[in-house]
Amino acid sequence: MKYCIGADVGGTSIKLGAVDEQGELLLKWETKTRKGDNGKLFLKDIADDIMDAIGSHEKLKHGELLGVGLDVPGPVLPNGYVDLCPNLGVREIYPAKELSKLIGGIPVRIANDANAAALGEMWQGAGKGHGSICMVTLGTGVGGGIVSEGHILYGSHGAGGELGHMRVDDTETENCNCGGRGCLEQYASATGIARVARRMLDKSDEDSGLRAIKDISAKDVCDLAKAGDELALKALSYSMDRLSYALSLVAITTDPEVFVVGGGVSKAGDILIELIKKGLANYQSLIGADRYEVALAELGNDAGIYGAAKLMFPEK
Amino acid sequence: MKYCIGADVGGTSIKLGAVDEQGELLLKWETKTRKGDNGKLFLKDIADDIMDAIGSHEKLKHGELLGVGLDVPGPVLPNGYVDLCPNLGVREIYPAKELSKLIGGIPVRIANDANAAALGEMWQGAGKGHGSICMVTLGTGVGGGIVSEGHILYGSHGAGGELGHMRVDDTETENCNCGGRGCLEQYASATGIARVARRMLDKSDEDSGLRAIKDISAKDVCDLAKAGDELALKALSYSMDRLSYALSLVAITTDPEVFVVGGGVSKAGDILIELIKKGLANYQSLIGADRYEVALAELGNDAGIYGAAKLMFPEK
Repeated sequence: MKYCIGADVGGTSIKLGAVDEQGELLLKWETKTRKGDNGKLFLKDIADDIMDAIGSHEKLKHGELLGVGLDVPGPVLPNGYVDLCPNLGVREIYPAKELSKLIGGIPVRIANDANAAALGEMWQGAGKGHGSICMVTLGTGVGGGIVSEGHILYGSHGAGGELGHMRVDDTETENCNCGGRGCLEQYASATGIARVARRMLDKSDEDSGLRAIKDISAKDVCDLAKAGDELALKALSYSMDRLSYALSLVAITTDPEVFVVGGGVSKAGDILIELIKKGLANYQSLIGADRYEVALAELGNDAGIYGAAKLMFPEK
Repeated sequence: MKYCIGADVGGTSIKLGAVDEQGELLLKWETKTRKGDNGKLFLKDIADDIMDAIGSHEKLKHGELLGVGLDVPGPVLPNGYVDLCPNLGVREIYPAKELSKLIGGIPVRIANDANAAALGEMWQGAGKGHGSICMVTLGTGVGGGIVSEGHILYGSHGAGGELGHMRVDDTETENCNCGGRGCLEQYASATGIARVARRMLDKSDEDSGLRAIKDISAKDVCDLAKAGDELALKALSYSMDRLSYALSLVAITTDPEVFVVGGGVSKAGDILIELIKKGLANYQSLIGADRYEVALAELGNDAGIYGAAKLMFPEK
């Protein structure tokens, strides 16, 4: 059985997995990310790990490995060039080329982590059966990945699908980490949802369970919104309204079949999907909003492994 | 010399051209669009025209025709399906498949006209040398086309690159033709530019050459803006500001190398490019705005022919 290995490289750990053509995860393991020497340390670790795995697992035969996919938390150009990736301590390298040399020329491809996650969800997760997807990851920040008719949109500067920095509020006064103002991340990330709620609390006298909480988190807002707390629901609705607005713009730019919502915040579940669908119907008039599927991510932390592995499977 | 034929099908006329691998337009001609019989009439005309051209021009040998590309003024799905194209009086057909049958199985591909124009400009026009482009066409409406790493973004519902209906003003009270409100088309089309200027005139007492004009056109606004008329410049600046905002969102969604501005309004020239660059710098902070090229379209009405023909040339 032909298989590929996906390596989802994060700032703390590297998740590796071998996935066969049917999308079955044959083996999964994890290793620490050793930074330093402009990426040479962790690339060597990945190479050693892969060679060890191939040699010692009966399902993983050398001749049946089609290739290795990598993903990293930073911009990746279509040719595999990584200009700067602070989380990994690397700059101006071609990680896939370097890794390929270390594993005897086995082909390696690379993508940005959010883009790989989108590809993974499309292949074996919430976007299964589709060819075009837009995935948005609501975590500390807001990440995004877009796959259009099977092709990851890397972007000429590696900024394809950088949905977190779509400007969705012209009236914002605070700056985003990127230097801009009114970025989606300021409203729909975990930090953003909490911020929106705090602002609403400050500006109103309305009673709310949130007032009793010292350090309001996105989870508090979601939990209380689901429990019927009006102010919490108002805050979450505003956050999801801004997300819907951003997605409505993606709808007529790359026009995917399905929107998938992942990341820590997505644990709040169906309430998010309902709010997003409502917003899409409000903002998107060219295509009937009901023609877009909106779904919660299904692969959790494994999305990157699946997506990275899929980079090396031929298109069908 | 291998060549392809491009047919740019409009509601009134069909522009045809034979283009060789180097992008040289070997022959160009035009025919009226005969509507009726769900597209069968004009498809037959195109087929006859192509067979005639092949038989009667020394540069066009039958064995060297790689294929025919079509473009139409309406949504086209990635599989070539056209659900509805009112301008051509067709619905629920596969025009490329039908045409291919009529010309003895020569391969035919099809795309939306704005997408084909973007591909054409990227191949032989203002986007030459690039692999990723976003083209916006400012005419009666606002059309858009995006090519990403060589692939046209058709969109799952044929709405890829439909920039004219990106919502760029939350405060708009009038409806767009699409049923939405605040669409880019309401500000940056020829109609939109004139509308913005009329609104500004109505809301101010400011002196302006526009006050002497009965039916203000976009050309009036552009001409007066260039001549230093402050209100006209303010109006044009607002229109281009909304366009820049839309393009800044495309910048971090599909992240092209170059933005190309075409259509009748683009005859106003460099003033548009300057205003757009200013707006991009204002709205786009993730990638330095100066890393995007912004240029006027170069192929005029031939962009569709080039793009349609390019559909059939293999990727390089």
